[in-house]
Amino acid sequence: MTNLLSVPRSVEWKETSITLLNQQLLPTAVEYIELQSIEDVWDAIVSLKVRGAPAIGITAAFGLALAAQSYEFETREEFETQLQKDRDYLASSRPTAVNLFWALDRLTTSIANVKSLNEAKTTLVHEAIRIQIEDEEVCYQIGDHALSLFSKHDRVMTICNAGSIATAYYGTALAPFHLSVERDIPLEVFACETRPVLQGSRLTAWELQQSGVNVTLITDSMAAHTIKTKGVNAIIVGADRIAANGDTANKIGTYGLALLAQAFDIPFYVAAPLSTFDTSIEDGSSIPIEERSPEEITHIHGQQIAPDGIHVYNPAFDVTPNELITAIITEKGILKDDFTSEIAALFS
Amino acid sequence: MTNLLSVPRSVEWKETSITLLNQQLLPTAVEYIELQSIEDVWDAIVSLKVRGAPAIGITAAFGLALAAQSYEFETREEFETQLQKDRDYLASSRPTAVNLFWALDRLTTSIANVKSLNEAKTTLVHEAIRIQIEDEEVCYQIGDHALSLFSKHDRVMTICNAGSIATAYYGTALAPFHLSVERDIPLEVFACETRPVLQGSRLTAWELQQSGVNVTLITDSMAAHTIKTKGVNAIIVGADRIAANGDTANKIGTYGLALLAQAFDIPFYVAAPLSTFDTSIEDGSSIPIEERSPEEITHIHGQQIAPDGIHVYNPAFDVTPNELITAIITEKGILKDDFTSEIAALFS
Repeated sequence: MTNLLSVPRSVEWKETSITLLNQQLLPTAVEYIELQSIEDVWDAIVSLKVRGAPAIGITAAFGLALAAQSYEFETREEFETQLQKDRDYLASSRPTAVNLFWALDRLTTSIANVKSLNEAKTTLVHEAIRIQIEDEEVCYQIGDHALSLFSKHDRVMTICNAGSIATAYYGTALAPFHLSVERDIPLEVFACETRPVLQGSRLTAWELQQSGVNVTLITDSMAAHTIKTKGVNAIIVGADRIAANGDTANKIGTYGLALLAQAFDIPFYVAAPLSTFDTSIEDGSSIPIEERSPEEITHIHGQQIAPDGIHVYNPAFDVTPNELITAIITEKGILKDDFTSEIAALFS
Repeated sequence: MTNLLSVPRSVEWKETSITLLNQQLLPTAVEYIELQSIEDVWDAIVSLKVRGAPAIGITAAFGLALAAQSYEFETREEFETQLQKDRDYLASSRPTAVNLFWALDRLTTSIANVKSLNEAKTTLVHEAIRIQIEDEEVCYQIGDHALSLFSKHDRVMTICNAGSIATAYYGTALAPFHLSVERDIPLEVFACETRPVLQGSRLTAWELQQSGVNVTLITDSMAAHTIKTKGVNAIIVGADRIAANGDTANKIGTYGLALLAQAFDIPFYVAAPLSTFDTSIEDGSSIPIEERSPEEITHIHGQQIAPDGIHVYNPAFDVTPNELITAIITEKGILKDDFTSEIAALFS
């Protein structure tokens, strides 16, 4: 249990403030900052100090609850008007983050039946904490199911950071690794650095190191050679969006790893909560792929590494077709047969 | 022809000096330096201003020829003693570079039958120039054969820099791209950045841009998505060493691309001169894979991008098994059937 205590946590409620891990400074500095006001929270989200959809949602919910604690209104109408204003303000911090709106709206609707403004304040705090606890439980269940797929001394590859610091705790694809330390099931993890933004080297390598996981960092280009020469047994990744048939959008590089898993005949696992599924889309072909700034490729930490004026293609995500996925691990269990009907059953 | 004129050249003989492209400063600065002495040449090789086995060999040969021009000895013995000293000095600049020794020894043996010390000086210059011309011809032939495999508007992916600036001219895997500009056969090239040392973004992107090739830079992690969404038709790479059965050691990341080519059912080509073949080794399993410093992965341009003390695996090369290679393109033609017997025939 000692090691488990050092799984890093992104955000914590502290009654009069919120403690936040400043992910912008990782991995060279580990800084926890105290957010004292709603402006601090807004700024932390805008400046990417917190990242990962669940972690952002939790931080924003804590921010709204914190703001409400200092309301000194006499009427419910004034209270709710200000709450809505503060909700809109926080929602503007990352206008494409669905989890952010979802968490904030859960808070504003949570006070529908309260009897007093004091009760409203308490309810908002409780609801925010509940969002965090629920997410932690979801991640724990994902980790528990995922770990059942691994054996002692398995060597497992991952990409990006589907980790504790992106969620309430434990993470998704990284959850089994954290639990493996708690349960003394030694695994060896190979973390791909995840160009262009290097979430693997900056975040995953650090997070797994913190919790005592045996982790080795490689560049993305080393995946095939590493699988072959180190005898990697499985690959596990997170997901940004999963279609009704199981096609999975995730960080660029995921699709290539899935094809390597097929070539080496090792299982390829996707770990994701039900909230990641978008059953309104039939398959991955209708998932839009965001293209990001060329500077992510031509510069690293402000240093230029490619010639002026070079043409760049910088897709942020790719889509792994369902036939390359061995299993999808959710908090409700493992999907591994006919994804389309299993997903439909989960959401019916 | 205008565009072709801008294919960059790494090294040029200038009678009283040697002009060298300083590859250490690419891609943010294009600096050609004048090497005036044997010490300048030694320093340029040691400090990696010139890279690529053929380019290093040519530079060293020019360096030895340059040094001999200022010899003022009376006797042949004195001349040859100093030449051998200078040869050993230059050979010490990169003690594992086989091409370097080969080029220097070609020079020292070239003067075996000269009648005078003046003739020896001229012969050394001519031999050095001949090494360059021969390498340029080899590269041209490789490019010519390779280009026959492509059609107008093909989209071709490559990794690392098997380029003009690594050879006398044209390069190996990049030769068909340079020739395609000369012959007005438009191709679209996708250059993988080639972590960890970024030869793709620093060198290949620059070199192809200089010669007017339509080149797009991607990270290595984007290869699978790019092949699929951009309709890449083929992959072509260079080689560091080719075994008697065609197994090919090349820059780390090559093996992964070969597996992607197989998955997408597109051809995977290796372009390399006969000097790259090592028929003394039966297959790739006995090619040693150099592991390099962790700092290549944990730092970029001196900036730390991974946590302190992280465990790193940094193989510099990988081995692509012959069954994943569609064809090997040499200056003598294209091998594409039974590599083992074709290679044996080439060297018999």
